Amino acid sequence: MMHPLLVPLKWLAHACERKTGPEDVLVKVLYCGICHTDIHQAKNHLGASKYPMVPGHEVVGEVVEVGGEVSKYSAGDVVGVGVIVGCCRECRPCKASVEQYCNKRIWSYNDVYTDGRPTQGGFSSAMVVDQKFVVRIPAGLAPEQAAPLLCAGVTVYSPLKHFGLMSPGLRGGILGLGGVGHMGVKVAKSMGHHVTVISSSGKKRAEAMDDLGADAYLVSSDADQMAAAADSLDYVIDTVPVKHPLEPYLSLLKMDGKLVLMGVIGEPLSFVSPMVMLGRKSITGSFIGSMEETEEVLKFCVEKGLTSQIEVVKMDYLNEALERLERNDVRYRFVVDVAGSKIEDAA
Amino acid sequence: MMHPLLVPLKWLAHACERKTGPEDVLVKVLYCGICHTDIHQAKNHLGASKYPMVPGHEVVGEVVEVGGEVSKYSAGDVVGVGVIVGCCRECRPCKASVEQYCNKRIWSYNDVYTDGRPTQGGFSSAMVVDQKFVVRIPAGLAPEQAAPLLCAGVTVYSPLKHFGLMSPGLRGGILGLGGVGHMGVKVAKSMGHHVTVISSSGKKRAEAMDDLGADAYLVSSDADQMAAAADSLDYVIDTVPVKHPLEPYLSLLKMDGKLVLMGVIGEPLSFVSPMVMLGRKSITGSFIGSMEETEEVLKFCVEKGLTSQIEVVKMDYLNEALERLERNDVRYRFVVDVAGSKIEDAA
Repeated sequence: MMHPLLVPLKWLAHACERKTGPEDVLVKVLYCGICHTDIHQAKNHLGASKYPMVPGHEVVGEVVEVGGEVSKYSAGDVVGVGVIVGCCRECRPCKASVEQYCNKRIWSYNDVYTDGRPTQGGFSSAMVVDQKFVVRIPAGLAPEQAAPLLCAGVTVYSPLKHFGLMSPGLRGGILGLGGVGHMGVKVAKSMGHHVTVISSSGKKRAEAMDDLGADAYLVSSDADQMAAAADSLDYVIDTVPVKHPLEPYLSLLKMDGKLVLMGVIGEPLSFVSPMVMLGRKSITGSFIGSMEETEEVLKFCVEKGLTSQIEVVKMDYLNEALERLERNDVRYRFVVDVAGSKIEDAA
Repeated sequence: MMHPLLVPLKWLAHACERKTGPEDVLVKVLYCGICHTDIHQAKNHLGASKYPMVPGHEVVGEVVEVGGEVSKYSAGDVVGVGVIVGCCRECRPCKASVEQYCNKRIWSYNDVYTDGRPTQGGFSSAMVVDQKFVVRIPAGLAPEQAAPLLCAGVTVYSPLKHFGLMSPGLRGGILGLGGVGHMGVKVAKSMGHHVTVISSSGKKRAEAMDDLGADAYLVSSDADQMAAAADSLDYVIDTVPVKHPLEPYLSLLKMDGKLVLMGVIGEPLSFVSPMVMLGRKSITGSFIGSMEETEEVLKFCVEKGLTSQIEVVKMDYLNEALERLERNDVRYRFVVDVAGSKIEDAA
């Protein structure tokens, strides 16, 4: 069944073309990861979707053409494009090189570019992107492997770096084992942390411990296990994308521990104030990462030999992939082989 | 009307006496501040009150006798005692000299001391306290002025120091203008901050601006004022002791801003996750301060010439003072002149 919100292949092939401006890079898309946000956007869960829409913001491609002011990239380079493609360049976040917090950021799709035209994402044959929002995929990283790092990977790397949580020996918790969570386990392990996966049931124990290399597994519904683990973690990366109680996870934190929220949740989350005050704990969160941090996490993964666990599919499987992702039936990230799907030919 | 939960003067005079042990200091109480927590404890709002109870944890007194192992203090010294009088000395917080976060801390009253006897607070003629939990009141600080610094003062000083918020030029918000809030304005101003007092109505504008020296005043119920102040503050010190929405104050914070909770509130507080994620903001809190920080804030106040605004009352006014405090009818802290009340004579 064709997903009603997705657009015909013919349209996809030409969605994002504008002329390559002086600061622009024309990228032939090779691979594009599927993020949970793509479902929210495609299905208008956030109430701001505009159609036709081409989702996709974990884009890896090959440079085809560069504008006259572009010196960093040339044709043939393998590059990545992530969640945002524009910012104001003048505000405090922009000047601090954390442009993801610019209030005028431009999303890779479902937004309006500076030329007044809609932005469209990576499930397309090509994208034209300002060079500031293009990163180089380092040698030693397969392009399909790189795709999930451009959103899921940098999303967990950025807060660990920013909040001073990169030192070996720290004890971290990863709550939720989806695309971001599995990357959290891998990135934290590569930093030398003791990693506990926290889940509502015991179902994912084997995969967490054996496949992903977690050090411990905690069932959040088991009060005894949770009590035994109280006051033991330096941080919890909370990837749960729906309303859930915070107290159980705050209780796991040591003094000065941080609960880092990664899920955009419309319903209010709640906690009682003594749970944070009596251990000087923080409830915080962060949003993807900067372009600098995106380059860093790519290099980090090459250095550490970190690979993501992905299932590569073709474009004609996209609707089924979205449905499977929605029921969390993927280990752990779908990556669409866009170039291999020959959507130009189909068009 | 005698408050039913308070104890007769005769009993008060002898409540806290134990023999002065080798590490102990016997303190004749001069002044004791009244904190909002004293109401919670006296009225069993937290469900754990034991009677008879002698509240009071902002205690300034004169050393009468010291144990054989005490070298830092001698008879005649003016000293202070705060919220806790014991800790385990072995846990991570104790070893990091933030003994206020020790899970085995012993409260100055309504707790059980290491000898198995109840602890009793500062509305008493004398206290015997381990030297670790005694601070010197520096020259240049009147003893009645020092009292509120031992809880309210260090409570605002500690998070500003810990969270890196002491630099001149920062922009801070103080939510709630009671004992802790007024101290927040004064401490933040003394650090060179631009200070905005945030209140639910315009009633306290003159006192905030004219008496306390705040730079700005924001009425939280005025949507236009709040919108105009969005994204403008580095921190908000939230002293509200009852359930309240957090989003309005999160929206005032800049990127990386911190909402620091000071009120022990049993009902859940709530927020939506994008409010913290999309600016990497933190909801955090802290609990009084360490003994080291208590010494620091006392010196800080002498250096800056910072005085608290207090109303000095006698012991026989204590019940009325508690009632007035409960309806927030004090500018801004009651301090009881314990020694001047001659409770020994009354007994």
